[in-house]
Amino acid sequence: MKETLLATASKIKPYIHRTPVLSSSKINQISGANLYFKCENFQRMGAFKMRGAIHAILNLTQEEKSRGVVTHSSGNFAQAVSLSANLLGIEAQIVMPSSAPQVKQDAVAGYGGKITISEPTLEARQAAADKIIVETGATFLHPSNNMDVILGNSTAANELLEDYPLLDIILSPIGGGGLIAGTALAARYLGKDCITIGGEPLLVDDAFRSLLSGKIETNQRIDTVADGLRTTLGDINFPIIQQHVSEIIRVEEHEIISAMKLIWERMKIIVEPSSAVPFAAVLKNPDQFAGKKVGIILSGGNVDLSKLPF
Amino acid sequence: MKETLLATASKIKPYIHRTPVLSSSKINQISGANLYFKCENFQRMGAFKMRGAIHAILNLTQEEKSRGVVTHSSGNFAQAVSLSANLLGIEAQIVMPSSAPQVKQDAVAGYGGKITISEPTLEARQAAADKIIVETGATFLHPSNNMDVILGNSTAANELLEDYPLLDIILSPIGGGGLIAGTALAARYLGKDCITIGGEPLLVDDAFRSLLSGKIETNQRIDTVADGLRTTLGDINFPIIQQHVSEIIRVEEHEIISAMKLIWERMKIIVEPSSAVPFAAVLKNPDQFAGKKVGIILSGGNVDLSKLPF
Repeated sequence: MKETLLATASKIKPYIHRTPVLSSSKINQISGANLYFKCENFQRMGAFKMRGAIHAILNLTQEEKSRGVVTHSSGNFAQAVSLSANLLGIEAQIVMPSSAPQVKQDAVAGYGGKITISEPTLEARQAAADKIIVETGATFLHPSNNMDVILGNSTAANELLEDYPLLDIILSPIGGGGLIAGTALAARYLGKDCITIGGEPLLVDDAFRSLLSGKIETNQRIDTVADGLRTTLGDINFPIIQQHVSEIIRVEEHEIISAMKLIWERMKIIVEPSSAVPFAAVLKNPDQFAGKKVGIILSGGNVDLSKLPF
Repeated sequence: MKETLLATASKIKPYIHRTPVLSSSKINQISGANLYFKCENFQRMGAFKMRGAIHAILNLTQEEKSRGVVTHSSGNFAQAVSLSANLLGIEAQIVMPSSAPQVKQDAVAGYGGKITISEPTLEARQAAADKIIVETGATFLHPSNNMDVILGNSTAANELLEDYPLLDIILSPIGGGGLIAGTALAARYLGKDCITIGGEPLLVDDAFRSLLSGKIETNQRIDTVADGLRTTLGDINFPIIQQHVSEIIRVEEHEIISAMKLIWERMKIIVEPSSAVPFAAVLKNPDQFAGKKVGIILSGGNVDLSKLPF
């Protein structure tokens, strides 16, 4: 696995930014830990999703590439697939729900994605994608339950460990499971006794419950402010998470918002609510992290400035 | 002068952050120029003011240090003097107007500054500072019209030119004149045919008019959104600006706000409105900057998140 992780990093390197790692003495003082924030909010298109998308597309055969790719998403993965396909000169078809804000549609179109609008149900989205697959032979890319996407995502933690090889812990948010699965593989195979902990909103604690029950659980409500984390695990990433994630810490909405505000105010960087979830977990359980060297993956920075939660 | 600038940089180095320089391909595409943003929003206490304050205090005699320093400010300089004095183990007295928001008073107190509240007029503030000087023998530090402050401020452009020696132009905002005077000295003596251009809000275009008339002008209105730029030039920085600043470009309020929003959205960093003024100047006169290598000093990132202008 170590060789695969390193090869993935080499492969996608020309297409991504190596993002900086920031620390803040004030934040360390407040948290009691030594925190190293991997700034994927500075990644191309503003989120770590670029890593998985470009890797999955690079790994298609020439023949597959010629038929293009398709995904359904209203979020960062739609932009990541559009930009990645654009960079590689292939076609990306993006199914977006009619409820997707115009600004997100504009972002996808700006990166060259070809948009199909569907009814805003998961069934309608999948049906629209299936229709495109049948008509064009395009390859479907799942945003989190795809091994090439997971491997691409691992490169964020990989770079973080290159910069700080002796991290005790890496935290990432858990939504669909693609980021934390990649992070956990990197921590396990590239770190030195480095464990992986997930941060998850209590409102959508499907991953926490999945680890307890041993099967993939779903959520009744999905109205968390951390809008990137409303999805559930998949059959490819769940076994990796079971094997390599030590613990999931759940945080409340107000804890996410105040952690996000602290990052904005103290670090002067813009992160989306999902990015603040692991930091909220550190602030919630300070004893667990006191004095430790802790990496945190800031997943992205795409936020509607006219709808801030504070 | 070159030796003085280099010596200043060495002297303050242990007390400041070397801030990163960020670029964005999207921002370059929008502006048509190659822009290098010097991120003083990541500086200690969140603004370039730290550089001038620490340098001025370091240059006091032991005897002066023992009597402490005093300034009147409700903004970044109050925090910079408080933190600098704290780092050097001396006392800082800060006169703040009774109108200063509690959050700014808390920030000054958090850095160890001793606050005296005065009536919110310039006369009352100066009188309160004078009283402290008479009683304690403290040294008054002016936020912009002080040669040691100007030299300290020069180190931002100095670092920027170390990273990018071939810049054609450096832009900084103009308020009290302390930042642009330091920037212009660095560009002139450390750059290679590098010129300095100022960005100034049209609403408070005293510096623009001062360069025209040859004497220090004042403003009728000061209600610009760029609240760090409401002050006027002084007799120490004005001659430097006359000699070494090529041009001042004035921008309107809506141009400042949209430039600020573009920086937030595209670069994912938090800058205060004053920081966006030079970038607004580039966007206003694209032909002048097309294809050029342009440094921009982002002066700071201290902004009230509950009162954003967009």
